[in-house]
Amino acid sequence: MRIEKRIAGVRAFVQAARRENRSVGLVPTMGAFHEGHLSLIRRSVADNDVTIVSIFVNPTQFGPNEDYKAYPRDLERDAVLAERQGVAVVFAPDPQEMYSPDFSTWVQVHQVSEGLCGTYRPGHFQGVATVVCKLFNIVQPDRAYFGEKDYQQLQVIRRMVRDLDLPLSIIPVPTTREADGLAMSSRNKYLTADQRRAAPRLYQALQMGADLVERGATGGRAVEAIQAELAREKLITPQYVVAVDPDNLTDRSDQVRPLVLAAAVLVGNTRLIDNVRVNGD
Amino acid sequence: MRIEKRIAGVRAFVQAARRENRSVGLVPTMGAFHEGHLSLIRRSVADNDVTIVSIFVNPTQFGPNEDYKAYPRDLERDAVLAERQGVAVVFAPDPQEMYSPDFSTWVQVHQVSEGLCGTYRPGHFQGVATVVCKLFNIVQPDRAYFGEKDYQQLQVIRRMVRDLDLPLSIIPVPTTREADGLAMSSRNKYLTADQRRAAPRLYQALQMGADLVERGATGGRAVEAIQAELAREKLITPQYVVAVDPDNLTDRSDQVRPLVLAAAVLVGNTRLIDNVRVNGD
Repeated sequence: MRIEKRIAGVRAFVQAARRENRSVGLVPTMGAFHEGHLSLIRRSVADNDVTIVSIFVNPTQFGPNEDYKAYPRDLERDAVLAERQGVAVVFAPDPQEMYSPDFSTWVQVHQVSEGLCGTYRPGHFQGVATVVCKLFNIVQPDRAYFGEKDYQQLQVIRRMVRDLDLPLSIIPVPTTREADGLAMSSRNKYLTADQRRAAPRLYQALQMGADLVERGATGGRAVEAIQAELAREKLITPQYVVAVDPDNLTDRSDQVRPLVLAAAVLVGNTRLIDNVRVNGD
Repeated sequence: MRIEKRIAGVRAFVQAARRENRSVGLVPTMGAFHEGHLSLIRRSVADNDVTIVSIFVNPTQFGPNEDYKAYPRDLERDAVLAERQGVAVVFAPDPQEMYSPDFSTWVQVHQVSEGLCGTYRPGHFQGVATVVCKLFNIVQPDRAYFGEKDYQQLQVIRRMVRDLDLPLSIIPVPTTREADGLAMSSRNKYLTADQRRAAPRLYQALQMGADLVERGATGGRAVEAIQAELAREKLITPQYVVAVDPDNLTDRSDQVRPLVLAAAVLVGNTRLIDNVRVNGD
């Protein structure tokens, strides 16, 4: 397995693979791998002749008061894990390789990037869409893999790919969870022991809401139930709880299934997100 | 030569060409071909195994009070001219093929899109960058050809390609001029006979400024001379006259060569632009 720091190096590798008619899968990540990342990587390795994993803690998707500097980084360990899964190339550029001093082009996805996390993280999805667009152009994969845990991000990427006619398929991969239901996240490392014990309440509450929706409740009714359940855990402070359209993320409080129930909460200073989807009848 | 109205049709053609290792050139146009367009097309046909010309009057780059509806359209004539030059495919999509009803993704190039035409045509370069990004993703050319007459557009596209790592080369092509120096433009058709006689004064004024710069004058001195020269023609109303850095388009009033002298004027209701470049010593 190769570790490439340079755009030109990845491009040369991909061009050689293309000449041999080999299909290319891309798994964009910020590193600090957990089982969720590995499930994306395994899926790409199964689907494609070669898999490229990018590891880049993208500065432009963090707000000024967010955890860009604290975000966990461990390239050596990540590289070992990637190699074990059969990854061909880890692309791990430095920020200056991705952003020139006078960088000035941004991809803005409106509509699906508004509301939910977009309200609490202004500029976040512009940073995500821009860096993902760059990664797509650098690697030119046939398929790229994104976790459903970051559901709004997934929809932003899908909308960008559709609107800009990017020539690849986006493959969503189900959320990987700890035994107690907590969605895997690199940020779970920030939790104290007490916070870690409280955190699974987020998924439990969402599941409770999903059960109601499955039995015919509206999105608004499910949101109330989720909020009531979260209120029982004093270590959890909700940012938002919503019931939205699975595709365009517009409000579905007054509607029944299909819908996505999504929430963001603070557990101490750590921001956790999760979602569950209830399909149509 | 094929005329394709569908994205899928162009993609299938390009994929077949790629499998045969044929290089692909793209000439993005709004149609209404004149010699300027044909010089772009000839250059692409010379450089590449296959040339694709897009003809799309892009609604998103016109302001609400601009000439989107009046813009000249003549696909039949354009197709004949393209075929004569050896073009493989004319891609002529309808607006609804390019923009779905809930289209919501925009490419914004800051810095080089500000000032000059950006001041007078708010939103114009966002529309240009977005549609050109789409065309690049649809055709995936090795090279794309742009006229130097639209100098700010050329720099916006170059910046976008650099910043988003788009995998192609941008080839600038010198401005084609009428015998009297007027830069060729589809909008020249709007001019009355009197206006047409007055219009070459724009290029004459720019050349006068360039002569001064070549003899050591600053950008600001050249701008004054150009403004004075334009003031002598009462059918011409200048919008802007500037001396800017050839790459990032920042003001170079206080600087000597290299620089670009650029201007936009109204001749009646018709907006004309032109520019001249003076290289370094």
